[in-house]
Amino acid sequence: MAKNSLGREIPAQWRGRTLDPYLDPWSRQPEVLRATRPLVRRAPGDSKLLPSLRAAIEACGLKNGMTISTHHALRNGDLLLNLLVKEMDAMGLRDMGIASSSVHGVHAEIIPSIRNGTITRIETGVNGLIGELVSKGELKCSIVVRSHGGRARSLVTGEVEVDATFIAAPCCDLTGNLNGVSGPAACGSLGYAHTDARYARKVVAVTDHMVRYPAAPISISQSDVDYVVQIESLGDPAKIVSTTTRLTRDPAGLLIAKYAAEVIEASGLLKDGFSFQTGAGGTSLAVADLVHRKMREGKIKGSFGCGGITGYFVDMLEDGCFETLFDVQCFDLRAVESIRRNAGHREISADLYANPFNRGAVVNMLDCVILGATEVDVDFNVNVNTESSGLLLHNTGGHCDVAAGAKLAIVVAPSMRGRLPIVRDAVTTITTPGETVDVIVTERGICVSDKHEDLKRELRRRNLPVKDIRQFHDEITRLTGVPRPVDFEDDIVALIEYRDGSIIDVVRRVRE
Amino acid sequence: MAKNSLGREIPAQWRGRTLDPYLDPWSRQPEVLRATRPLVRRAPGDSKLLPSLRAAIEACGLKNGMTISTHHALRNGDLLLNLLVKEMDAMGLRDMGIASSSVHGVHAEIIPSIRNGTITRIETGVNGLIGELVSKGELKCSIVVRSHGGRARSLVTGEVEVDATFIAAPCCDLTGNLNGVSGPAACGSLGYAHTDARYARKVVAVTDHMVRYPAAPISISQSDVDYVVQIESLGDPAKIVSTTTRLTRDPAGLLIAKYAAEVIEASGLLKDGFSFQTGAGGTSLAVADLVHRKMREGKIKGSFGCGGITGYFVDMLEDGCFETLFDVQCFDLRAVESIRRNAGHREISADLYANPFNRGAVVNMLDCVILGATEVDVDFNVNVNTESSGLLLHNTGGHCDVAAGAKLAIVVAPSMRGRLPIVRDAVTTITTPGETVDVIVTERGICVSDKHEDLKRELRRRNLPVKDIRQFHDEITRLTGVPRPVDFEDDIVALIEYRDGSIIDVVRRVRE
Repeated sequence: MAKNSLGREIPAQWRGRTLDPYLDPWSRQPEVLRATRPLVRRAPGDSKLLPSLRAAIEACGLKNGMTISTHHALRNGDLLLNLLVKEMDAMGLRDMGIASSSVHGVHAEIIPSIRNGTITRIETGVNGLIGELVSKGELKCSIVVRSHGGRARSLVTGEVEVDATFIAAPCCDLTGNLNGVSGPAACGSLGYAHTDARYARKVVAVTDHMVRYPAAPISISQSDVDYVVQIESLGDPAKIVSTTTRLTRDPAGLLIAKYAAEVIEASGLLKDGFSFQTGAGGTSLAVADLVHRKMREGKIKGSFGCGGITGYFVDMLEDGCFETLFDVQCFDLRAVESIRRNAGHREISADLYANPFNRGAVVNMLDCVILGATEVDVDFNVNVNTESSGLLLHNTGGHCDVAAGAKLAIVVAPSMRGRLPIVRDAVTTITTPGETVDVIVTERGICVSDKHEDLKRELRRRNLPVKDIRQFHDEITRLTGVPRPVDFEDDIVALIEYRDGSIIDVVRRVRE
Repeated sequence: MAKNSLGREIPAQWRGRTLDPYLDPWSRQPEVLRATRPLVRRAPGDSKLLPSLRAAIEACGLKNGMTISTHHALRNGDLLLNLLVKEMDAMGLRDMGIASSSVHGVHAEIIPSIRNGTITRIETGVNGLIGELVSKGELKCSIVVRSHGGRARSLVTGEVEVDATFIAAPCCDLTGNLNGVSGPAACGSLGYAHTDARYARKVVAVTDHMVRYPAAPISISQSDVDYVVQIESLGDPAKIVSTTTRLTRDPAGLLIAKYAAEVIEASGLLKDGFSFQTGAGGTSLAVADLVHRKMREGKIKGSFGCGGITGYFVDMLEDGCFETLFDVQCFDLRAVESIRRNAGHREISADLYANPFNRGAVVNMLDCVILGATEVDVDFNVNVNTESSGLLLHNTGGHCDVAAGAKLAIVVAPSMRGRLPIVRDAVTTITTPGETVDVIVTERGICVSDKHEDLKRELRRRNLPVKDIRQFHDEITRLTGVPRPVDFEDDIVALIEYRDGSIIDVVRRVRE
């Protein structure tokens, strides 16, 4: 057991894997060749069509101990991962890994197959019940939480070997050309599936909407697809893009958004060429809305918006605030509709978006990002994975990727949630290192990293409530009281991998 | 020395390379893992800009004996390859290989650098003077002629290792996102450069039109580009798309086109879902024009057109004859204009187009292709590389790829050229094996492969001049006389590689 540079205890090994403790956001270099896979030849006239998921699992040669993946563009509407796990379970496959781009609440259905040993590893974060049960020691399943860029990196370096990927394909032809922009399960961008299509040993396109050759546009092409399976339904369209993408109406949230927008303005970045990302939370969207107004009023011609895309960013594209949207995932129906018809709204892979180990990811070009947090600490470290209960409930998403890439990473959060202060002496779990976080905005004060003395000065000049983060921590804690520390057992149930593959933190079992 | 299955003498080795004799179009399988390369990490703020080609050559670490590549979308207007060779020559680099997607007449400028040993290998075919001089033994440079699909295969399998690719980028941003659709050297599709961008050890974008980030659309992305160099001009726009893409007015050519169009109709393929490719020769375009009329009259909704794209195919797209154009190379300005603004006109890589060693190339889905020939023989073998003089004057292009993929591969050619019969007892050089050629159409007769007895019958029913190829050979030879055989020396100056990497023929030095 050694401490990483942020003081977290990281064992030398965990469940057979040698761990590399986190050092800093920048210095770890790729030391391997790009991962490879066998080449395949297909003759003209060969059919890729298989009658069922079971036939595809068999054709892929899946055996005990292997790893599959899916993408999460259908989010809580996804039916495919549950179908696959059920099928593998029924076939008697055991000790399988899931390296999907994310696992959502809807996938709690696979819990029985975790209990019986069909699934023993999840090579990605989990949202919801599975993480909770694993945190409590009620479910045994190794979890490695990876960011979107870190996941792409793990496939490209070969650290994670996907034996078969099953790509939910809302629109597909018989050779496997596929896209996400039409069909009953249309979800827009398939950004998370590209890396799997290029690196998985076998690639299966699974569709509920088979179209005449060639499917168009081609997000993933026939030259990467081994098999095609048609099933009745990929997902529940009502839940595919169900994320609530609405402005907050909460007065505190609106005040946070106002402060955040003023920080952006004060930073000097809000000028022609501005690039921007926000998540889909209500406060983030309120920031987007304010930035949109400022750009329109100032006739500012931005460069690009990126990330998971919402209708608010589509509005900004259509208004000329951005020339381009780089879309790795559509968060709502307006985004799906926009990517279908607007050439400026472009699908990008998670690799191009955020992989630290390529010749330059889009996040490196970002001016400003608005991020959320469940906790921050006095060193600006951010936790989005566990809640203050210690339970692993959320995936990293692009959080640490975008924080590292953007010139200005702003965390927006209420100063307290329930009776818990947002700012802690130390966060329960470190998702994103403080070195990559620039500003924390709450309704009661704005904390600016010491790297940005100019920005601090400018904010003070604008009479904004800039506060030292340690004093702010004390101020909030006086109101909330010092939260009772979570009681953890020694055993580690999950790793939090930083985007470069080093271990930034671990999640220990919660004592109950 | 052993004979391959077509009776051509293939040595066991040639200039250090062990040769695998051609067996048949289908059975050779990929037995290697996909080629790889080192991964690279770029921090936010890193600049990729270099001040000159020389700086880029140095940054790529090019050393004696290494290999570079360029793409040929600018064709006879390309300035970049000449500039690179001059620079390498001036830097004293020797024994360098060129693995460009094609070498054109304009590149005869590099001949002094071949003479002095700067360039000793061309890992692709050559059009024009270099091949002629090599054929005559006046220039020493190893040439391996590869088809478009075969070249992609050679990069993907690692048989050809490109140390640095220099991608002429008509529109580029400072991170290396690039496309071919705008700027003074706009050439449309960059289909030949994609595989290099993914497999070359170092990737340099060279542009004369730097745009604000992000360049859009993105044909090749920043995540694959190491360096960016701005130069004054990539090429001469007047020659970039200079191929004469005009219908033939020659009566024999028009008759050939009429016959070919009738063959297509008689084949039963010309119905909804029809897919089609032609080259840019005058007779091929005349066929395209007739097929267009038949489709319009019959209200036939085709599926896709592909290959090098001309304005004739753009017309067919715009008329609704095709849903999609798959464009690996734009042959004229109408094609460039179309790919810029029409979403149905899609850029594809040479790999997706024609690589035999992927999970399914577009050529495998082709119904019909119209091909040219310098000679055919009584076994339907086709020569497009050498002329009857024995001189290596032409590249393979996609010839053997498309013949293998398409259901109906039709060769159109005049029955004689000058005093030389088109049909020979044996072609001087085999480019495309007769097993993949279905019909040979001349103005004096139509020869149909014995595989297609139904088609023969249908053509006879339509009173078309179907002739047995051996009888036709005799008939033409009676008119032209038997051509004097070319006098060859024993030594081999070039290999003709089939798309699967086996050696289908060799080119020997012409005795003078």
